[in-house]
Amino acid sequence: MTTIRSQVAIIGGGPSGLLLSQLLNRAGIDTVVLERATRDHVLSRIRAGILESGTVDLLAEAGVDDRLRAEGIPHDGFCLSDEDRMIHVDIHALTGRQVTVYGQTEVTRDLYQAQDAMGTRILHGVEDVRITDLDQPRSVVTFTHQGRAMRLEAEFVAGCDGFHGVSRRTIPEDRRREFERVYPFGWLGILARMAPLAPELVYANSPDGFALASMRNAALVRMYVQVPATDRPEDWSDERFWQAFARRIPAELAAGLTPAPSIEKSIAPLRSFVSEPLRWGNLFLVGDSAHIVPPTGAKGLNLAASDVFYLHQALIAALRGGDRAGIDGYSDCALARIWKAMRFSWQMTTMLHRFDGEDGFAAQMRRATLDHLARSETARRDLAENYVGLPL
Amino acid sequence: MTTIRSQVAIIGGGPSGLLLSQLLNRAGIDTVVLERATRDHVLSRIRAGILESGTVDLLAEAGVDDRLRAEGIPHDGFCLSDEDRMIHVDIHALTGRQVTVYGQTEVTRDLYQAQDAMGTRILHGVEDVRITDLDQPRSVVTFTHQGRAMRLEAEFVAGCDGFHGVSRRTIPEDRRREFERVYPFGWLGILARMAPLAPELVYANSPDGFALASMRNAALVRMYVQVPATDRPEDWSDERFWQAFARRIPAELAAGLTPAPSIEKSIAPLRSFVSEPLRWGNLFLVGDSAHIVPPTGAKGLNLAASDVFYLHQALIAALRGGDRAGIDGYSDCALARIWKAMRFSWQMTTMLHRFDGEDGFAAQMRRATLDHLARSETARRDLAENYVGLPL
Repeated sequence: MTTIRSQVAIIGGGPSGLLLSQLLNRAGIDTVVLERATRDHVLSRIRAGILESGTVDLLAEAGVDDRLRAEGIPHDGFCLSDEDRMIHVDIHALTGRQVTVYGQTEVTRDLYQAQDAMGTRILHGVEDVRITDLDQPRSVVTFTHQGRAMRLEAEFVAGCDGFHGVSRRTIPEDRRREFERVYPFGWLGILARMAPLAPELVYANSPDGFALASMRNAALVRMYVQVPATDRPEDWSDERFWQAFARRIPAELAAGLTPAPSIEKSIAPLRSFVSEPLRWGNLFLVGDSAHIVPPTGAKGLNLAASDVFYLHQALIAALRGGDRAGIDGYSDCALARIWKAMRFSWQMTTMLHRFDGEDGFAAQMRRATLDHLARSETARRDLAENYVGLPL
Repeated sequence: MTTIRSQVAIIGGGPSGLLLSQLLNRAGIDTVVLERATRDHVLSRIRAGILESGTVDLLAEAGVDDRLRAEGIPHDGFCLSDEDRMIHVDIHALTGRQVTVYGQTEVTRDLYQAQDAMGTRILHGVEDVRITDLDQPRSVVTFTHQGRAMRLEAEFVAGCDGFHGVSRRTIPEDRRREFERVYPFGWLGILARMAPLAPELVYANSPDGFALASMRNAALVRMYVQVPATDRPEDWSDERFWQAFARRIPAELAAGLTPAPSIEKSIAPLRSFVSEPLRWGNLFLVGDSAHIVPPTGAKGLNLAASDVFYLHQALIAALRGGDRAGIDGYSDCALARIWKAMRFSWQMTTMLHRFDGEDGFAAQMRRATLDHLARSETARRDLAENYVGLPL
């Protein structure tokens, strides 16, 4: 068995693991990143595309914001719609801040490039990961890499390996508390080469259910419709998708729609999930390994970034000066923000989706909530403050 | 059969019927009020006790605010609590307005006195009410009074006879659309002679469920605990009530609690209900006859008052100058405000009550919502603007 060492072992080479590694490396802290999939596979996953201003600031701190500044599209607001009614939420006027349209895939690509330039050890195709000795000065991660049994020793382990990863399950089941809400629908998303339908995102409520008109750049859109959780992408031809989509958005937008062929099509389930605590000895959970939000409101990547924000400061303080207050406080501190984003994502999801079997009262509550937003600047400000990101 | 006539027939002698009658009478319009119960019975019903500033203004317009001004207690805010955490919502600082503590029973008493001074015909003990000829210039209300068959002819009929009244059911079932949410719990309320526990109302969330510390005046309190919908008042001794109440409010308040014997004890079910439309020919539904809110947020009487506000203006315009725009617009206009109050009351109810069989996620969403209110002035302002009453 080959043994390697680092100050921090990072399980998972998605955006949260790479961002944490990058921030630690820039502070002179040595990391090793272990990733199950190939780099191409990681970069093929289409995910969120809206960055909070705090996430942009953190990417700047990590030195990976050059392309983001050049290619990212700042948005001053977004729209909600209720059948043909459009409700504009002017984030910039309401909060003085903006969000930035820049795909998670692009963030990940920028991070790989920066990490390569740093010479960080990123191992792909890693299997059979086990995390042990978390109560010892040096924790141990054993794994298989290219057929060889490996052992990584590190002072701290960051679990950035997502919902299906091994990190969370390393915490004994009877010491974890899990909260979950599985929604009875998914999002069918397509990627298509066409100009955005509107300059900003449109989150649409309709009697048929939810739709979202979103974009990646001036010539690439990401569009979604709510579908039953049991549907498969092959159930949805492009024609069927665009018909459903057009029916759910305001007529004035649908009139300008010229459907383009999809170049990617997938269905994502909607789930709210939190596992507490985020710390187990010297293991710290980050992002999707500990919590999942439904995509409504685009909090997933941003919430992983705020975990990374808290954890990189805590690890730097512990490793540089032996100050363990940050790592002792990490779980509570990160969870306070996580629950706020959980609430916001749940509220947005409830406000915009049709629930099968719901009564007329539930549909009226959605309409009344949207009507309240249309008429109350205070309600729009509350939504905008959450959408652009609560303070770290 | 004895026939009487009036310009407006008012079915129901509770606060909404009396307030409408009083406002019409002051504008020189003749009314007759028909009430099933005795006056003593009407005045024995303990109901809400928080008046929006717009309701106070309307009572002033009706000339029934002398005692309200003298005895009502203006409140600048209220508290929410989550276990031992207190969250102050400073309505006055957030909105520039106030609410007034003054029992519905007192409002009703003042209205009876004013109506008696007006010489308005208010018939009690009315039975077998039937409303017909609503498409005719003179509608007809037939009923039995003191054993005599009576007929009341009027140009307009106002249905102020509550959820169980005949007015709503006069609209054919296939021409009504009803929305309903029955909550799986009720409020056990007691009236007791003691000083209020806190200067303002405290709406308490706790793992055991909801409690509310409220008051009628400096020496009379109204306290509530959430109970299963199937409980009966006799299941709850005073001792059991106070123990449950004390466990649900913050410890700092419970420490100052010296239980007093209850002088009234009752259980109210919680229901959200709306029947559309509010108009059928020359019949207009007002208040509980068309809509019910759960008591959380104290919107019931205030919403009846805003219906009366719209309807009295509409009827005066129609009867004085033949301008029917107001009566044609009444249903849509009143419903727009009703749905907003429905949303607010449903949100307050969801945020503060424990639902049997709920999962941990639901309880966390309540805590996160309260936490958001504790930290966000914008969220508190949105709540305060709704609590003090949205614009008419």
